[in-house]
Amino acid sequence: MTFAAASAVTARDDGTFGVEIADGWEIAGNANGGYLLAIAARAVTVATGRPDPVTITAHYLASGHPGPATVAVDVLRSGGRHSTASFTLADTHRTVLAGIATTTELHTHAGPVLIDVTPPDLPPPEECVLLVPGDPLPPPFVGQVEVRLHPDDAPFRGAPSGVARMRGWFRLRGGEPVDSIALVQAVDAFPPTSFNANLPVSWTPTVELTAHVRRHACDGYLACAFSTRNIAGGYLETDGEIWDEAGALVAQSRQLQLVPV
Amino acid sequence: MTFAAASAVTARDDGTFGVEIADGWEIAGNANGGYLLAIAARAVTVATGRPDPVTITAHYLASGHPGPATVAVDVLRSGGRHSTASFTLADTHRTVLAGIATTTELHTHAGPVLIDVTPPDLPPPEECVLLVPGDPLPPPFVGQVEVRLHPDDAPFRGAPSGVARMRGWFRLRGGEPVDSIALVQAVDAFPPTSFNANLPVSWTPTVELTAHVRRHACDGYLACAFSTRNIAGGYLETDGEIWDEAGALVAQSRQLQLVPV
Repeated sequence: MTFAAASAVTARDDGTFGVEIADGWEIAGNANGGYLLAIAARAVTVATGRPDPVTITAHYLASGHPGPATVAVDVLRSGGRHSTASFTLADTHRTVLAGIATTTELHTHAGPVLIDVTPPDLPPPEECVLLVPGDPLPPPFVGQVEVRLHPDDAPFRGAPSGVARMRGWFRLRGGEPVDSIALVQAVDAFPPTSFNANLPVSWTPTVELTAHVRRHACDGYLACAFSTRNIAGGYLETDGEIWDEAGALVAQSRQLQLVPV
Repeated sequence: MTFAAASAVTARDDGTFGVEIADGWEIAGNANGGYLLAIAARAVTVATGRPDPVTITAHYLASGHPGPATVAVDVLRSGGRHSTASFTLADTHRTVLAGIATTTELHTHAGPVLIDVTPPDLPPPEECVLLVPGDPLPPPFVGQVEVRLHPDDAPFRGAPSGVARMRGWFRLRGGEPVDSIALVQAVDAFPPTSFNANLPVSWTPTVELTAHVRRHACDGYLACAFSTRNIAGGYLETDGEIWDEAGALVAQSRQLQLVPV
């Protein structure tokens, strides 16, 4: 199944969107948070008539599982450049996530430019570590996308690096084109940075995830870097940057995760 | 007027909160976005019965002005550790902002710790540049709080530094204690980082602001650092870090701003 099909939404007469959370996108039995957010993002772009979620935030209220679900979108404002909508994604039992997004039509060549950050230094994709589902890790989800970790950051292969960081390449399976919705998926497609920290931290469920989709990606692999600088008080944040093969910064993300104790 | 008074909320019988957007908190005629978000955050903490907005996001839909307003809070989930609520703040004419927050009771000493970032290197407060309202800049808002810029980052005093960064000290006027709501204010209390970039950028209205309140601040000044690394496509992001005088990282923030062209 393509990502486009797995994240498809169907407008219903009552204004909500019917979706099907696909099989196989789970991590530890729960659908990947970026996948769920991508579904919601697609519904918001359809509801607002604008293709690019320049900023989208979700708070995760319950785990999501394969099966039918509903995205409800409430368009709060629609202006000349932006539309803003709140949304929920609920399965047949409960609300899985709730959030808010602003959509637009991104234009690459608009206004002044200052980029004071560089893509991660990655070996070519074929020299990185392709994640394939294992038992119990890596999870089934990694079989739905193509994630290739920097060899220094591949904890499934050896020892943690000691740095709370994950770098690598991402693309959709088979090289399916990456639209703005797939970028929302990409920001939550890598293993937790905490897997590379020498700390007694494993499962770090997402409390909140915000993604900024800043530019359309060109075809090819995405160079991704995720880092965590503040693990304290039972939480950690993970900052993400996604670059396309042309070297453009296409998305930034931050999520707040729980550190169960 | 204290910050506590300026951000007070009154529960109404219909479940909404009455607020009064105070005079004097404007920037270019519009109430400061962090001030408005602090009002909303206070309403959310009251509605959820939890004092700390560990993550809160707002999207700014219209400018806010002094006068009566209403915060509507919809509690979506209340669990053992977190409550999540969506909210809107509306004046008598229109919705000013909408967002979502998760509240908790922060515990400083919980779980493993890894902090891979340091406070900004600031001269003592008395050697920094106290912002006072001018005509037209700095705006009236700076008279409601105490912001002291690093001398190298004080564009009102001399030339822009050339680095899209703002560092300095923050406290509430008269040393009023800083609670978690005041931290939400602090993340949006500094002049735009773009004032220090050598670019034709001035007014950068906020599209979306997310704050993570990670820890209770001790008494004293807050050391603050804001930086922008990606100005492109008509947007920029500003990342903020707030440290207390004991050297603890108490809040992190990111906002997406429009770069009008």
